[in-house]
Amino acid sequence: MAVYTDVSDEEMMAFIAEYDIGELVSAKGIAEGVENSNYLIGTTKDHFILTLYEKRVREEDLPFFLGLMDHLAARGIPCPEPVHAKDGRALRQLAGRPAAVISFLEGLWPKKIRPVHCAELGRALAQFHAAGADFAIQRKNSLGPKDWRPLYETAAERAHEVDESLALLVESELDALERAWPHDLPTGVIHADLFPDNVFFIGDKLSGLIDFYFACNDYMAYDLAVCLNAWCFERDRSFNTTKARQLLAAYGAERKLSRDELNALPILCRGAALRFLLTRLYDWLNCPPGALVKPKDPMEYVAYLQFHRRVSGPGDYGLE
Amino acid sequence: MAVYTDVSDEEMMAFIAEYDIGELVSAKGIAEGVENSNYLIGTTKDHFILTLYEKRVREEDLPFFLGLMDHLAARGIPCPEPVHAKDGRALRQLAGRPAAVISFLEGLWPKKIRPVHCAELGRALAQFHAAGADFAIQRKNSLGPKDWRPLYETAAERAHEVDESLALLVESELDALERAWPHDLPTGVIHADLFPDNVFFIGDKLSGLIDFYFACNDYMAYDLAVCLNAWCFERDRSFNTTKARQLLAAYGAERKLSRDELNALPILCRGAALRFLLTRLYDWLNCPPGALVKPKDPMEYVAYLQFHRRVSGPGDYGLE
Repeated sequence: MAVYTDVSDEEMMAFIAEYDIGELVSAKGIAEGVENSNYLIGTTKDHFILTLYEKRVREEDLPFFLGLMDHLAARGIPCPEPVHAKDGRALRQLAGRPAAVISFLEGLWPKKIRPVHCAELGRALAQFHAAGADFAIQRKNSLGPKDWRPLYETAAERAHEVDESLALLVESELDALERAWPHDLPTGVIHADLFPDNVFFIGDKLSGLIDFYFACNDYMAYDLAVCLNAWCFERDRSFNTTKARQLLAAYGAERKLSRDELNALPILCRGAALRFLLTRLYDWLNCPPGALVKPKDPMEYVAYLQFHRRVSGPGDYGLE
Repeated sequence: MAVYTDVSDEEMMAFIAEYDIGELVSAKGIAEGVENSNYLIGTTKDHFILTLYEKRVREEDLPFFLGLMDHLAARGIPCPEPVHAKDGRALRQLAGRPAAVISFLEGLWPKKIRPVHCAELGRALAQFHAAGADFAIQRKNSLGPKDWRPLYETAAERAHEVDESLALLVESELDALERAWPHDLPTGVIHADLFPDNVFFIGDKLSGLIDFYFACNDYMAYDLAVCLNAWCFERDRSFNTTKARQLLAAYGAERKLSRDELNALPILCRGAALRFLLTRLYDWLNCPPGALVKPKDPMEYVAYLQFHRRVSGPGDYGLE
């Protein structure tokens, strides 16, 4: 929930006048996204999202993010499309911040996940990976396996405030993952944060993927691991094999997973669980008391991690 | 900034299906309004605001608020119009809360007030007062002069935390206003909260009045006093006579102010200043530490109050 940068009407109208999208007639700060300020703007022609990039997004990464959306949209992936201003540029400046206008995508993100959502997600994720194959710009995963230990170290001393045994779990997991992390799985452009609130549906049909601000080059199967965690656990933290099977089967129908990728799934899922556990732990410990936005519970990801430590192989994810 | 009630897609889609406004295709929580949860929704036909009324709005007042918007819209006042569902009702239930769908109003609220805005405001306010004259439902002002002392008493003990001399000022002002408050000025339906963020413009033209959730029956000139405070002081807390003159003249061109009303302006302005001083004081003292939404500074209204205590007559508001 975020509108961090306040923009005067004069500034916003002058900014919009530099695009060929009609005149500004409305602007509402929207309560979605935690990294950036987002306005839903109406013009005499259409609706758009105006994003001001706040400090958590590195400015040098913006050409990758906006270029990727351009690239994907041109290949038919349903995603927001950056609007280029009259000067040809998509990345511009507003109120002293980098800013972009992107197309407005219809759809609602699913609050209650059903297996049909997971099947739609799997297909779209594979299509996204295929479309990204010839994208020219590269971006390193800034929250990959090498980043987990330094991230943990910023929180280690206070991990016990969340749970007494958390430090022990994370440390043994860091050791294990550093030893067992796979070395040569197929790589590509991955979304890396494809949670339900980043996937829109109209009825049962997927209508859009949004929020590419963690996208990077990494193992494509790691993207699946992020999704298995984000989409296939129930509220009671039990794993729903039906959802996982739908996700993996629909993905596999578009891009066949290799034996190595399948075998690596349990370790990739542990890594993905640890990555979100660590960022949630960091946010939990660094949240100002009384803040309106309650940080997400890191212990949820402890439960997921423990599930993946117990699986005996990819079959436990519903695969035959 | 507020989305307090989370609504699942299934609930929202089922809710929208009970209206004749097309199918739901998007919904964004919007970061405006502090009393209610607001979603900007898109359907296959148009855009609308979906409001869920939170606890600060009394449910028994909703027929007044929604009926007033119906009444005003029918008389050509540019304001949100409640959409009636297929069952004829505008006030319905969603996620366990009273809820209404209202039309989406184009326009931007002015962050930098110019005299032309004040002229537009004055004309629209007078037209609003005229249109409200035959509205059948009545609602008492729940923040009128009789409510100020009890409200102050909930904060009195801690007033010194804001400013050492605040208690003395408020107490002398309560005494003075109770003695001097006028008794028989022309009454009508007033907005009672017509701050710049409740008035939309497209270019220099007023395009809409919103947020009728403080509307009530009271002195019409008191509404002007609220606006003089909210629109005519500069950021350095100095009073801008040009803006006040524009506001009052444009209002007077539509509805002539009586000599009694003009003479009462200084005392009405003091009352209006005290009313917002007191609610801000209450919010300031009751804001959780570290909350994301910073409460508004009560001392701003102390400055306004002190200005009005010093004026010698209505001429100080730019009137000839």
